[in-house]
Amino acid sequence: MATHFADRMIDAIEQKQAPLCIGLDPMYERLPKQIREIAAKARGDLAEQAAAAREFCQSVIDIAADQVPCVKLQSACFERCGPSGMKAYFEVVDYAHESGLLVIGDVKRADIGSTAEAYAVAHLEEVFLGEGDKEHPVAVDAVTVNPYFGVDGVQPFVEVAKAGGQGVIVVIRTTNPSARDFQDIKDADGRRVFERIAERVNDWANQAGCVGDSGYSLVGAVVAATYPEDTKLLREMMPNSLFLVPGVGAQGGTIADAAQAFHDDGWGALVTVSRSVIYAWERPEYQHLGEVNWEDAIEVSMMDAKGALAEALARRATSTTPEA
Amino acid sequence: MATHFADRMIDAIEQKQAPLCIGLDPMYERLPKQIREIAAKARGDLAEQAAAAREFCQSVIDIAADQVPCVKLQSACFERCGPSGMKAYFEVVDYAHESGLLVIGDVKRADIGSTAEAYAVAHLEEVFLGEGDKEHPVAVDAVTVNPYFGVDGVQPFVEVAKAGGQGVIVVIRTTNPSARDFQDIKDADGRRVFERIAERVNDWANQAGCVGDSGYSLVGAVVAATYPEDTKLLREMMPNSLFLVPGVGAQGGTIADAAQAFHDDGWGALVTVSRSVIYAWERPEYQHLGEVNWEDAIEVSMMDAKGALAEALARRATSTTPEA
Repeated sequence: MATHFADRMIDAIEQKQAPLCIGLDPMYERLPKQIREIAAKARGDLAEQAAAAREFCQSVIDIAADQVPCVKLQSACFERCGPSGMKAYFEVVDYAHESGLLVIGDVKRADIGSTAEAYAVAHLEEVFLGEGDKEHPVAVDAVTVNPYFGVDGVQPFVEVAKAGGQGVIVVIRTTNPSARDFQDIKDADGRRVFERIAERVNDWANQAGCVGDSGYSLVGAVVAATYPEDTKLLREMMPNSLFLVPGVGAQGGTIADAAQAFHDDGWGALVTVSRSVIYAWERPEYQHLGEVNWEDAIEVSMMDAKGALAEALARRATSTTPEA
Repeated sequence: MATHFADRMIDAIEQKQAPLCIGLDPMYERLPKQIREIAAKARGDLAEQAAAAREFCQSVIDIAADQVPCVKLQSACFERCGPSGMKAYFEVVDYAHESGLLVIGDVKRADIGSTAEAYAVAHLEEVFLGEGDKEHPVAVDAVTVNPYFGVDGVQPFVEVAKAGGQGVIVVIRTTNPSARDFQDIKDADGRRVFERIAERVNDWANQAGCVGDSGYSLVGAVVAATYPEDTKLLREMMPNSLFLVPGVGAQGGTIADAAQAFHDDGWGALVTVSRSVIYAWERPEYQHLGEVNWEDAIEVSMMDAKGALAEALARRATSTTPEA
């Protein structure tokens, strides 16, 4: 994994013709009945819940592999299955890589100094799976981090990522209703906390050795689709950062909102769809397919999201005046 | 674990006569040679590093059990050992409980809505260790969380903790040099972000069902010892929250600084000492004991910290005028 994270991501987006990331948030209670039956004793047995989560994610990856560049694993859903859940996490990362997908570990870790370094090593350096001849290393391509500790909490991740050709995606703006509680506190000049953070993230992104041949940095940003005006502003403030854009679907953002995260040339962001795709058979639009055909519902909803995103980006391209 | 977290903590502090918490941050490279030799092949083998970390933490617990009420496990150091590290984490929690200690899981997790709920379940609900007849549940007494997502990111932890008689300790003010990057951004009224957060944490701490018989809430706060003036202010702002106070020793704060985190009656905080105690044989004051006598160095430095804290609190008590 020597090449630069952003360069690899841009190549993968070009190859799959879709800046779309599928979020893998396996929640045992919401898994299709057939998968839950694999782990019949699973209630109360975390190891079996972990096996069910792995099985489900592998099925989603089989569907996604030819269609999208990337999957994002929600660490919380794996940690919830105890120590065997973390093993399943790395097994799913491995499976996604074998299927030709890039992988973002959505771990949102942060701490100070040497503890941040321990988290960076834990989540970016290689873990070994398999035994004897079959032993092989596994590591994600990028992780998400929380900025509350300032540069000390982020820089250790940047150093480890730089060495491994990986990425660090800093949470700036989240999709939840209470995101505004602290992210929107205004300073004396009327600038909000998340803007102040974005300004610093742009500095971190432009450090020596961080920007790849594609012009994008290994330091990216999580920018919620749910506040399109803020998304436009952040796009200008962090021109060299790839944006990971959650909040479309279940969380109230539209694909058109998410399109604000892209530069006029149609590059620079990766829209994440998670529960609206992986549990698509629960949605009125796809319910007719039935839970028994959950794989069809996932595939159809994934293609729908891909189509809607292509359309929104095309519409955006025609509505923006090209520079002279 | 039905009783209220803060009530149990206050009882334990009274019993051990010390508001002191030992931080377990096992870093393989810093473990005493004898422990590293237990895991001779440990470099490159994460499972053996995890075994060494567990062994070391159990030795520290043996020394601490009669002297302090509580240990704090640094999740990053266990996660760094891969999936077997998380197993070791729960095994150390179990061992600490068997030794009569309360346990704080320093996980600093946070995310939005249902993901925060998954983290809360992962880190507060029971995990089962042992097999067959020996199977038994393990869960920490409290976790640390990051406030950046606002109330949505914290409340799921509060709900799970309330049901389990556990605690949630919100990071307010950290000890690192760049803590000021974002925590100290001033609003139009000159109030800093961490003050705005403290104000909300005080609301969360005083929700129905959160305050125990001791008068303290299950919602606590991480308040660095390194800014004593701010510590005094925060003590006033969050009267019912137990403070977890890091930053003494390696990070530059003094025990006298940490004493500002207590109410005039000498209650309300728990000072954490981590690397300055568990790697005490590396410090000039204790080097004469030698690495081979690392357990003595840990014991002596722990007793020194306990003595210094008792003295600082006694000095503080005599310098504050009792209310009429």
